[in-house]
Amino acid sequence: MNHGVILNVLGGLLRFLGVIMVVPLLVALYYGDSLYPFLAAVIITGLTGILLSYKYKSTDDWKIREGFAIVAFGWFTAALFGSIPFMLDGISPLNALFESMSGFTTTGATILQDIESHSRSILFWRSMTQWIGGMGIIMLFIAILPKLGVAGRQLFRAETPGPTEDKIKPRIRETAKILWMVYLFISIIEVTALVLAKMSIYDAVTHTFTTMACGGFSPYSQGIAVFNNPFIEVIIVVFMFIAGANFALHYRTLYTDRYSLVNDNEFKFYTVIILAATSLLTFSLWNDMGENIFTSFRYALFQVVSITTTTGYATTDFNMWTDSARIVLLAVMFIGGCAGSTAGGIKVVRFLLLLKYSQNALFKSIHPKAVKPIKFNNKAVPEDVMQAIVSFVVIYIMIFAVSTGLLSLLGMDIISSLTSSIVTLGNIGPGFGMVGPMASFDVVPFVGKLVLIANMWIGRLEVFTVIVMLTPEFWKR
Amino acid sequence: MNHGVILNVLGGLLRFLGVIMVVPLLVALYYGDSLYPFLAAVIITGLTGILLSYKYKSTDDWKIREGFAIVAFGWFTAALFGSIPFMLDGISPLNALFESMSGFTTTGATILQDIESHSRSILFWRSMTQWIGGMGIIMLFIAILPKLGVAGRQLFRAETPGPTEDKIKPRIRETAKILWMVYLFISIIEVTALVLAKMSIYDAVTHTFTTMACGGFSPYSQGIAVFNNPFIEVIIVVFMFIAGANFALHYRTLYTDRYSLVNDNEFKFYTVIILAATSLLTFSLWNDMGENIFTSFRYALFQVVSITTTTGYATTDFNMWTDSARIVLLAVMFIGGCAGSTAGGIKVVRFLLLLKYSQNALFKSIHPKAVKPIKFNNKAVPEDVMQAIVSFVVIYIMIFAVSTGLLSLLGMDIISSLTSSIVTLGNIGPGFGMVGPMASFDVVPFVGKLVLIANMWIGRLEVFTVIVMLTPEFWKR
Repeated sequence: MNHGVILNVLGGLLRFLGVIMVVPLLVALYYGDSLYPFLAAVIITGLTGILLSYKYKSTDDWKIREGFAIVAFGWFTAALFGSIPFMLDGISPLNALFESMSGFTTTGATILQDIESHSRSILFWRSMTQWIGGMGIIMLFIAILPKLGVAGRQLFRAETPGPTEDKIKPRIRETAKILWMVYLFISIIEVTALVLAKMSIYDAVTHTFTTMACGGFSPYSQGIAVFNNPFIEVIIVVFMFIAGANFALHYRTLYTDRYSLVNDNEFKFYTVIILAATSLLTFSLWNDMGENIFTSFRYALFQVVSITTTTGYATTDFNMWTDSARIVLLAVMFIGGCAGSTAGGIKVVRFLLLLKYSQNALFKSIHPKAVKPIKFNNKAVPEDVMQAIVSFVVIYIMIFAVSTGLLSLLGMDIISSLTSSIVTLGNIGPGFGMVGPMASFDVVPFVGKLVLIANMWIGRLEVFTVIVMLTPEFWKR
Repeated sequence: MNHGVILNVLGGLLRFLGVIMVVPLLVALYYGDSLYPFLAAVIITGLTGILLSYKYKSTDDWKIREGFAIVAFGWFTAALFGSIPFMLDGISPLNALFESMSGFTTTGATILQDIESHSRSILFWRSMTQWIGGMGIIMLFIAILPKLGVAGRQLFRAETPGPTEDKIKPRIRETAKILWMVYLFISIIEVTALVLAKMSIYDAVTHTFTTMACGGFSPYSQGIAVFNNPFIEVIIVVFMFIAGANFALHYRTLYTDRYSLVNDNEFKFYTVIILAATSLLTFSLWNDMGENIFTSFRYALFQVVSITTTTGYATTDFNMWTDSARIVLLAVMFIGGCAGSTAGGIKVVRFLLLLKYSQNALFKSIHPKAVKPIKFNNKAVPEDVMQAIVSFVVIYIMIFAVSTGLLSLLGMDIISSLTSSIVTLGNIGPGFGMVGPMASFDVVPFVGKLVLIANMWIGRLEVFTVIVMLTPEFWKR
């Protein structure tokens, strides 16, 4: 393991983060908030970055192990330094790390009890960590992992089987820049749309940060319910839906082939899942809770899109819904958004391929000698991609089970244990029970918070990146 | 599809069942119960069997489709005719079918409210259906499926990847007979042991029927708790443990190689799972509920073995335990016993191979070019066996999810919906909430009972057998 390479990259990351932190500093200046939290954060983060970059020089000696370590520790380092402003705002170190990890992993689970009691600049930074995290995810898939060469391609494939694998442009740095432009471009459209729907600029920007990242933080305890404005809801639904789809396809749709999104197998299935879940939930809300059909549909569509894309916004306290309605949301919690999006979860493409794989097995059990490949976007799916998918899901479910068990041992009830595990591992945000959309994760016991921080980190890095470092094989020789 | 072949086999099955039903008739005679339910059942079942056998002659024209149909409809037919005594005892047709399906699939979920109000002969028949069902499972794996030839081998492999695949003796009928002898032999030992522990002959026989089948029916509402006898509990734990392991290995251990059980990878993992879950549960009961450590261990061991082997006996109302204790049981509900046993569930071998597959994927992500096969009992596992396992689990989880959703739409709470789905699909018996060990499935709504009947049937036949008949491919040409 070449530690120098890893520390060099972390140095670069911290310098970047130090510069980024100037933005909330300016926001604090504008609103007359205390400048100290951000000033200190900029200095500590920037100086650490400069020191690391000075001490450890860049080399091209990247192998697969360094790649995993950079990705895993990179995210952790960002969360750690990103928590400085929260700590200096008076939040306990563990809670600050939780909130910052929830930000950079675009989860949206919060330990804040009374959100409005915090300054506007702190809440701005909180939302902004998600937007940066979302940018990081896009960079992870498109720019960092392929840089690892052959090894990187393997890693890349293990992490995102599916459409992100084929290169958009040969030059990867160029691609990353283009995708960020797309990310920025769509973000600007959302801000504009929200302002037109009579949101303040501050609200429009902070909510765009967390919509585009499939994050879900809001500067208001009541979340999107605080606006009670159908236009705002429609805008947010549209942009959550976009953010939960593959950004590589967005780029192509905008610049090369405008049918590339609608022709994509994963995008089609993603749409079908959302429509089906919305129908079921509308029926359940209408049937069980006596809401009228339009109100039911309004709540259902918003909540299904919010949870499927792993954003986690709420327009109502869905924890108060009947169990049949909550089960629909529980089901989509296990699915998540598309590969190459800012969404978390198991991902639609993995589900789709597992279903195709099973259908294929049923076919084979009737025609034992038939040879029939599994196809995705008209291409045969190689066996090792299927193995990566299956293994991802197996490890994901195991972490989910262990985490649920640990939380229940700490005294949490089944529903809270189950959902707080899946909403952190899937980077969703709010769950049911103790961790409902209008509640706070602050009620989770100390050790439980550590478990959930680990879940967010492991889930955001597509499980393998962190888990592989726990195998003895990783540290051999 | 050759309907004649299918009906001929069903005829043979019904004639066999008609003869078997003479046993509870004799029990009714002995206890002076009403003879009418069994007399009618023997006549109806036997005559239908004779009629079918007379009308449809046996041929060797079995193909894979007929094989699936025979297995699936065979089990359903047995449950249907087996419900006659219950109906004539005054139980409603749906409830009678539920109880009979729960018997023949060795599930142990009951719709009876006041078990002791039913006659001894009815309760004897109820327990006996499980013993016959257990015999059926052994016959399914060893005698029927291989009879289908190549096609049968494929089906067989799809159903029980693992140790049952290799033939014990070349002549299959011979093997089936030997395994039944083993089943009978171990049953007789259990009856003897229970009688020595001061059980009545009636109790010893009925409880042996349902232990050996991993069934779980008891003639008492309080189940095994009614005896409150540690010796009886130890005996039942030992025999549940034996019944949840591979009968082919029991045969070998008894007659050829006495290390064949302890050297088997699945058996070792099965033991590890039980020990680990027992330790966790002991800790949880001791820590959360303030029980002393011995009582905790006594409850924990019994309940873990009972649920892992999918028997479903209870020595206490485990539905009243804390959530951390219930989560341990929930976890083992998803695992089940060994392949080739009378236990249900996903099966230990499938879990073990999925874990090995995932470990292999982690290894490959560090060594992308390495070739390393997945091994089970020192043999490489072929790719199509892995596909069958993965597909089994995917379809299993999907049925579980759909069933849970349906039950919740019918107004059941999350915990009851989740557990009643898994305990029927996994052929376990009691769950949590409305369907706890001291409760009755009679509270489940009408449509919900149909769903659970389907779950028991699909789960017992290793999912594929029934689901394959729902594909259009099955009915083509």
